[in-house]
Amino acid sequence: MFLTEYDVIVVGGGHAGAEATAAAANMGSKTLLVTMNLQAIGQMSCNPAMGGIAKGQIVREIDALGGQSGLVTDKTMIQFKMLNLSKGPAMWSPRAQSDRMRFAEEWRITLENIHNVDFFQDMVSGLLIEGDKVVGVKTGMGLEIRSKAVVLTNGTFLNGLIHIGDKQFGGGRMGEKAATGITEQLTKIGFESGRMKTGTPPRVDGRSLNYSKMEEQKGDENPQKFSYTNTPKLTKQRSCYITYTNSETHDLLREGFDRSPMFNGAIQSTGPRYCPSIEDKINRFAERERHQIFAEPEGWNTVEVYVNGFSTSLPDDVQAKALRSIPGFEKAKIFRPGYAIEYDYFPPTQLKHTLETNLIENLYFAGQINGTTGYEEAASQGLMAGINAHLKINEKDPFILKRNEAYIGVLIDDLITKGTEEPYRMFTSRAEYRILLRQDNADERLTAISNSIGLASDDRLKRVENKFKKAGKLVHYFEVNSILPEEINSAIVENNGSPINQSMKMVTVLSRPEIKLRDFLSLQRLNDFLEENELNEEEIEQAEIQIKYKGYIRKEEENADKLKRLENLKIPADFDYFKLVSMSTEARQKLDKIRPATIAHASRVSGVSPSDISILLIYMGR
Amino acid sequence: MFLTEYDVIVVGGGHAGAEATAAAANMGSKTLLVTMNLQAIGQMSCNPAMGGIAKGQIVREIDALGGQSGLVTDKTMIQFKMLNLSKGPAMWSPRAQSDRMRFAEEWRITLENIHNVDFFQDMVSGLLIEGDKVVGVKTGMGLEIRSKAVVLTNGTFLNGLIHIGDKQFGGGRMGEKAATGITEQLTKIGFESGRMKTGTPPRVDGRSLNYSKMEEQKGDENPQKFSYTNTPKLTKQRSCYITYTNSETHDLLREGFDRSPMFNGAIQSTGPRYCPSIEDKINRFAERERHQIFAEPEGWNTVEVYVNGFSTSLPDDVQAKALRSIPGFEKAKIFRPGYAIEYDYFPPTQLKHTLETNLIENLYFAGQINGTTGYEEAASQGLMAGINAHLKINEKDPFILKRNEAYIGVLIDDLITKGTEEPYRMFTSRAEYRILLRQDNADERLTAISNSIGLASDDRLKRVENKFKKAGKLVHYFEVNSILPEEINSAIVENNGSPINQSMKMVTVLSRPEIKLRDFLSLQRLNDFLEENELNEEEIEQAEIQIKYKGYIRKEEENADKLKRLENLKIPADFDYFKLVSMSTEARQKLDKIRPATIAHASRVSGVSPSDISILLIYMGR
Repeated sequence: MFLTEYDVIVVGGGHAGAEATAAAANMGSKTLLVTMNLQAIGQMSCNPAMGGIAKGQIVREIDALGGQSGLVTDKTMIQFKMLNLSKGPAMWSPRAQSDRMRFAEEWRITLENIHNVDFFQDMVSGLLIEGDKVVGVKTGMGLEIRSKAVVLTNGTFLNGLIHIGDKQFGGGRMGEKAATGITEQLTKIGFESGRMKTGTPPRVDGRSLNYSKMEEQKGDENPQKFSYTNTPKLTKQRSCYITYTNSETHDLLREGFDRSPMFNGAIQSTGPRYCPSIEDKINRFAERERHQIFAEPEGWNTVEVYVNGFSTSLPDDVQAKALRSIPGFEKAKIFRPGYAIEYDYFPPTQLKHTLETNLIENLYFAGQINGTTGYEEAASQGLMAGINAHLKINEKDPFILKRNEAYIGVLIDDLITKGTEEPYRMFTSRAEYRILLRQDNADERLTAISNSIGLASDDRLKRVENKFKKAGKLVHYFEVNSILPEEINSAIVENNGSPINQSMKMVTVLSRPEIKLRDFLSLQRLNDFLEENELNEEEIEQAEIQIKYKGYIRKEEENADKLKRLENLKIPADFDYFKLVSMSTEARQKLDKIRPATIAHASRVSGVSPSDISILLIYMGR
Repeated sequence: MFLTEYDVIVVGGGHAGAEATAAAANMGSKTLLVTMNLQAIGQMSCNPAMGGIAKGQIVREIDALGGQSGLVTDKTMIQFKMLNLSKGPAMWSPRAQSDRMRFAEEWRITLENIHNVDFFQDMVSGLLIEGDKVVGVKTGMGLEIRSKAVVLTNGTFLNGLIHIGDKQFGGGRMGEKAATGITEQLTKIGFESGRMKTGTPPRVDGRSLNYSKMEEQKGDENPQKFSYTNTPKLTKQRSCYITYTNSETHDLLREGFDRSPMFNGAIQSTGPRYCPSIEDKINRFAERERHQIFAEPEGWNTVEVYVNGFSTSLPDDVQAKALRSIPGFEKAKIFRPGYAIEYDYFPPTQLKHTLETNLIENLYFAGQINGTTGYEEAASQGLMAGINAHLKINEKDPFILKRNEAYIGVLIDDLITKGTEEPYRMFTSRAEYRILLRQDNADERLTAISNSIGLASDDRLKRVENKFKKAGKLVHYFEVNSILPEEINSAIVENNGSPINQSMKMVTVLSRPEIKLRDFLSLQRLNDFLEENELNEEEIEQAEIQIKYKGYIRKEEENADKLKRLENLKIPADFDYFKLVSMSTEARQKLDKIRPATIAHASRVSGVSPSDISILLIYMGR
């Protein structure tokens, strides 16, 4: 059936699988994407949106690394918002609504246009394993397809079980089959597996909603985008609408609690804490009088609307009644009810930092199979697994992002070292160095290293270098040029600052919190400089961030440097922790189990205290 | 869950279901479309093409009646060909390749834009029946949704079972779940059910084909379209490619025969005779040295290619080996193998001419559930079921097309009176009056009657009237004006005809087989007339057909009139056929079973001879 042995087989065509496929193939691996339904590649199974706080940064990082999610989103978005603009630039987070059908179509076309990608529609039901190496996959049709590496991105499909009230159906998504065989095989080999749960809200008919009772939420007036390349800017946008639950809604929902699989014991597995169902919200926060609900359009042309904030697995009649008690939803017609889904995952402490499994060589896991939640988390793992699968089979060094280099580094390091008991979602608070890990500089952080391993193109790299060269020129201009009181004091006073008394370096004035770079734009000489050097908005913004946050950025860089020295201090693979009798028992057990590769890695294992690390360092001669 | 009782519930969102939904809703019924997957509305499950011989006429009829298939096809086609142009106009048959994804998207948008259509995603697992009336449906989720009428369009989903070699999977289409419950309920009530089989070829990666070894098949230079409305004309097209199997292919296929479910007894049900699998073809026509294979693109942008002519359920390894023995396919990469599918159908002799079931009032069947094959056959039944469901619940007369009015009339009459033992496909040979049932005059035949029942719009009707008024003017012009020998003889001689000796009526000359209307276009006075009356291409062509085929058309009209008189002669519902002792036993049994409503209907029952009809007529006093 198959003409060649593949370099890499990717199982699953969601966000993780699609990125893994694109990455491995773009780096030169003959890659086969096997999916149960070729029509469902790049499906947004839950909300039709990409990005958001911390997640938007991840999409920017994927783009900077030469991944595809940013490009696909830019080409298919119907609304863009930069969240947290009132906070510092470390918190700025891009978010887009996408056209669900176009998003999937664009992913399909993107993958088809990559020379090295082949496609096959079938369920993967098992792995071909020789010794402790994976050498391909077995399919439901009974085919054996050989490859040097395999990336599993099974999403919610492994033994997927859907719950709506007291009804249960096998399925990987509503209306789609579950996948079987892989969990059974892997647990037999010695993998530990678990169950997780996630959920989705009802979809409704937008024609049945009364938007005049909701608040319109428009996209940004000057919409930006995800990709650092020259994808087109949005010229028109669709609005979302905000409304709120009320005490009647909550009472109606509570009436269904005895039939809720979340509360009556039918679902034992853990759902995403920070993306709770509506029944969870009113149960855990009983004092809250209302919860926000977003009516999000599913595309440019469709009338289907996603009811963000109303994820639920309550019985369908309860869903309908409660939903219709919300202002604007009085006559809502439901296209499909919300549901919960339970699925198998594999605790990610069984992986290396490359996302390769410890037990089976050349086998990689990415996405929900690792216990994460979110398109962006999945896509970034897929990208990293695809990259590392390619590097490994070509006997090249692994590609690992550090915690001070990328949210993706934080994500994977958290998963590998700490594992996760509930669906893992990224937050800015998970990053120690979030002033370094900004959405505006992912290209500076990542494009060069990606280019060096053969993924990000030379064009991309040139673009980044040019951007930072030009921003640097502007920073320099502010450092060497001064400004007179009469040139800036009116702006300072307008922003409630204290006026300056004498000529000052421009950089000093811009460092003041009340002053923005645009306050300098009345200076003719600055405008001349900008024009002469052809600086665009993005470059000017970059310079402003570098100037205003210089102190914070430098401090984090110093901390990161310290960490880097420890990061590089390796612990022998066969190190005997049990001989460190002064170390706590818990720490010795955890370290023996996880076997961190470096001191830095060891320091992040949960249950390992700074004093435990000191003991380890002393023993190792530091 | 549901705010209202619906007028009509349509089960299934394929060609039949989508047309039924649109028709009922456009006529004013509150209509609910229930489908297992809202993302799969309007799927082309098999080849990405609409129309073809006899089928193209059906699409034109659907359009003339105010259905949607023509509009959806026109908006999404990537190639158009008028087949059989070298034959008479009764044989001209439009055919289009469609973009598979766009086709489905366009259907979804079309339905969303109809005010009266609601949507719900769930499996219908049973019907709500009170007495002998259907009053709604039950779903897999356990919902009960009430309605005045129900249209079942389950396609291949009822207990669908997929075969590839000796492997079997439950499923309605590859990668999709089967539907259960309905057959079990209906057979318990007394419905007879059966199994049918159909199949589909492998899909391959167009990048792996060598087109230089195939013949290019371009679209028409002046592509026409399906809809009589002003849908846009194609400005660019994609080509198909033709290649052939050879003796090696046939040998390779034969090697898999022992593992073929078609030959080893695994599949007992009957497949479509005129759309046979490749193994069937080489088995039944062992003397044929080659069979034609068409490589058909699946859309504007995708690389996926449909291998028309290679439908198969042989083992996947056999499919791959045999396919690669075909010129151009040497390195073909397979996206998904071909497969056969068995599914439940209900012999259509259990239906009235309205497609309502005899046993359960207000329950309608359309499409493959009636034992037909083909998108066009399905769509037209859906349209008629949707229309009749609406009319019935509004206590209006049924809408039945006669055999001399439409292929749709032939189709439904054949199904109801003769039933079918194998998947029923339309052919021009099935129509007694195929010179009347042309693709160019479906609007003349059908738009006015559809307008009179409230489906085809007034605009459509005006358009048709205008077209035929203008064509009529041109016919009249040819009837009253003469032409001189020197004006036409060079054209006659060029076409190998015998020159005329004196001035003749233009209509007489145009009636000659060797002469075409365009041979007259050197006449300045004719050009002036065309310009003055603003006649377009379509109207000129219509006039030409009317003039050239006048004799044939009139003869068929006379025959049809005769039939019409019999058509109207009703047979009492309780007529006792067994007292007609001189009638053949077979005829008496068949007529007693089928209980035809009219003499015409009786005359078309298989096994009933003209002499049986004479006996019946004598007994009835004629």
